[in-house]
Amino acid sequence: MANKPESSNGLTYADAGVDLETYDAFIGRLGSLVRRTHGPRVIQNPGGFAGMFRLDYNQKLFQRNYKDPVLVACNDGVGTKLKIASAMRRFDTIGIDLVAMSVNDLIVQGAEPLFFLDYIAVPKVVPGELEAMVRGIAGACAASGCALIGGETAEMPDVYAPGEFDMAGFAVGVVELKKATDPLRVQPGDVVLGLASDGVHSNGYSLVRKIVSAKKLKLDRVYPELDESQTLGEVLLTPTRLYADPIVRLQRAYRVKKVVSGMAHITGGGLAQNIERVLNGKVDVRIDTKAWDVPRVFEFLAERGKVAHDEMMRVFNMGIGYVLIVRPTFADAVQRRLEKLGETVRVLGEVRKGTGKVMIG
Amino acid sequence: MANKPESSNGLTYADAGVDLETYDAFIGRLGSLVRRTHGPRVIQNPGGFAGMFRLDYNQKLFQRNYKDPVLVACNDGVGTKLKIASAMRRFDTIGIDLVAMSVNDLIVQGAEPLFFLDYIAVPKVVPGELEAMVRGIAGACAASGCALIGGETAEMPDVYAPGEFDMAGFAVGVVELKKATDPLRVQPGDVVLGLASDGVHSNGYSLVRKIVSAKKLKLDRVYPELDESQTLGEVLLTPTRLYADPIVRLQRAYRVKKVVSGMAHITGGGLAQNIERVLNGKVDVRIDTKAWDVPRVFEFLAERGKVAHDEMMRVFNMGIGYVLIVRPTFADAVQRRLEKLGETVRVLGEVRKGTGKVMIG
Repeated sequence: MANKPESSNGLTYADAGVDLETYDAFIGRLGSLVRRTHGPRVIQNPGGFAGMFRLDYNQKLFQRNYKDPVLVACNDGVGTKLKIASAMRRFDTIGIDLVAMSVNDLIVQGAEPLFFLDYIAVPKVVPGELEAMVRGIAGACAASGCALIGGETAEMPDVYAPGEFDMAGFAVGVVELKKATDPLRVQPGDVVLGLASDGVHSNGYSLVRKIVSAKKLKLDRVYPELDESQTLGEVLLTPTRLYADPIVRLQRAYRVKKVVSGMAHITGGGLAQNIERVLNGKVDVRIDTKAWDVPRVFEFLAERGKVAHDEMMRVFNMGIGYVLIVRPTFADAVQRRLEKLGETVRVLGEVRKGTGKVMIG
Repeated sequence: MANKPESSNGLTYADAGVDLETYDAFIGRLGSLVRRTHGPRVIQNPGGFAGMFRLDYNQKLFQRNYKDPVLVACNDGVGTKLKIASAMRRFDTIGIDLVAMSVNDLIVQGAEPLFFLDYIAVPKVVPGELEAMVRGIAGACAASGCALIGGETAEMPDVYAPGEFDMAGFAVGVVELKKATDPLRVQPGDVVLGLASDGVHSNGYSLVRKIVSAKKLKLDRVYPELDESQTLGEVLLTPTRLYADPIVRLQRAYRVKKVVSGMAHITGGGLAQNIERVLNGKVDVRIDTKAWDVPRVFEFLAERGKVAHDEMMRVFNMGIGYVLIVRPTFADAVQRRLEKLGETVRVLGEVRKGTGKVMIG
């Protein structure tokens, strides 16, 4: 089976652009990057058809920790931020975005991340590029307490033009049923806290790229009003912030008390639309736009693209990447705790009686 | 926020080719297809950031059924079979392939499928096409006892040329630790059973398409030596067979006895390479190629492409899509049981003392 096919003028799989042997060897080399994300719950399954993950280290611990476990799963890509990575020939950050997009969604439900799988599709495996992508993914998984237990790399020269590629990520977590977040919990008087983003994150890049091309901006140029030391492309590739570690720690600190009423990951649709997703029909959220500073990258994009403020708010996170709605008596303590964990936290506004709307002004 | 942006000559997200409102409305319509796959373990989470799935209907059942649950997860795409779907403008079968590729891998570990998520990337959402894809995915999920609890559709006109698209699937299942398959269990004397495939399934399409183009075959033509009533394209789009239902039923029938020593889903690498993945170093498997009939599609491809027999065996399933290695005393009973469930089963060979190799002759 490992013999080279003998056909002299017949067609082989290698003729068709797929060399199984080189490919397998390379995938094997990625193993060490991946294994670094594995804790004691990962069952090593070399050559296996699937990744295997115990819900707990051992049977006793499992039965103490889980009465009614709910698996939480989500998937996402990174949109056309990949086009910026491709244009810059920089593949070490986009894997962080991939993990962040799914894992930041997962923790919104109150879940602890367990594991992650990636799908990477390329026209042709370029080992250095693929390794950079997987390094980013594995690093972000480790930083999020998430094991990278599987993945698929598809080489499809006829689907992806040279320089094009795509990625999809899948994350699974677990939450005890009664601890899962629930929109019904959000009450008038609750305080809305915002965690700073690290820039554009992974949404709105179709508009970003439209501005770049329409206004003939250069990705490899430094625009001092944007950033004194980084090029535009570097600023735009800043990875999506990973909120899993601080949020999971916060929830562990309040194991018994119900402190957090709701959370939202701010993606496409911006602050208003994403906060609305976690409200019930009896409350509104009022947000004061003066509560935080909008990062320069958004001002730069708005000014260069002459993009209306409402549109900016609808497409981008505008500097707030993750939102917590917390009980008023705990707001100060939660803010301090998250700040100690390295987050920049702002009080954005409050919850009032209403009809499930978000008002920003 | 739901207002149309007022910018008269500034750029909007819609200008950049992404219309969030039309898109959201369409995604909402897919909901009914998706909800049909939901059993009582799915927690409805409208507007939520992630899918939610209880490990069991209720706390008591859960604690009776699971002592040490292992989550099993895998993901896959459908490779360049999508190019055939695209060329034929037929999008109702490729979703079945997507589910089959992941779920057939999952059950190899002894797992029961729980849920599935899909990623679909297109240059532009064409509602009819996307709906056909999701209909295929949802139908295959239902047939596999798998809830479709999430998905992401990415519209990326700058990554995918018109007519191109990609899909990735992600499946999660569960198996009680001591019931998970383990290569150490395969013993000399075990019998190797093969379940018939439904044709090429989803591997080897780069070679298939190379043959089609090099030999100027027509996808819309009927080749009587291949099939009297279907076009070549139709034959090539035959969906990958879903083995989850019969395999899960088989395992339930032998809840206590360890009847199955190992299983393999026959994908890229063919029978030899995939069976080798589940062997320990002390056994060989000997397979008799006369044990089953090779479907006409493989003979057609080999003959037209002048592809050597070894290469065919290395790239394609050649008519056997799934393999079970079973204890000899149960081989007849397992065969009869799977035949009653609609499978075509052949005794392919047996396990002998050896070094972890598969011999085919």
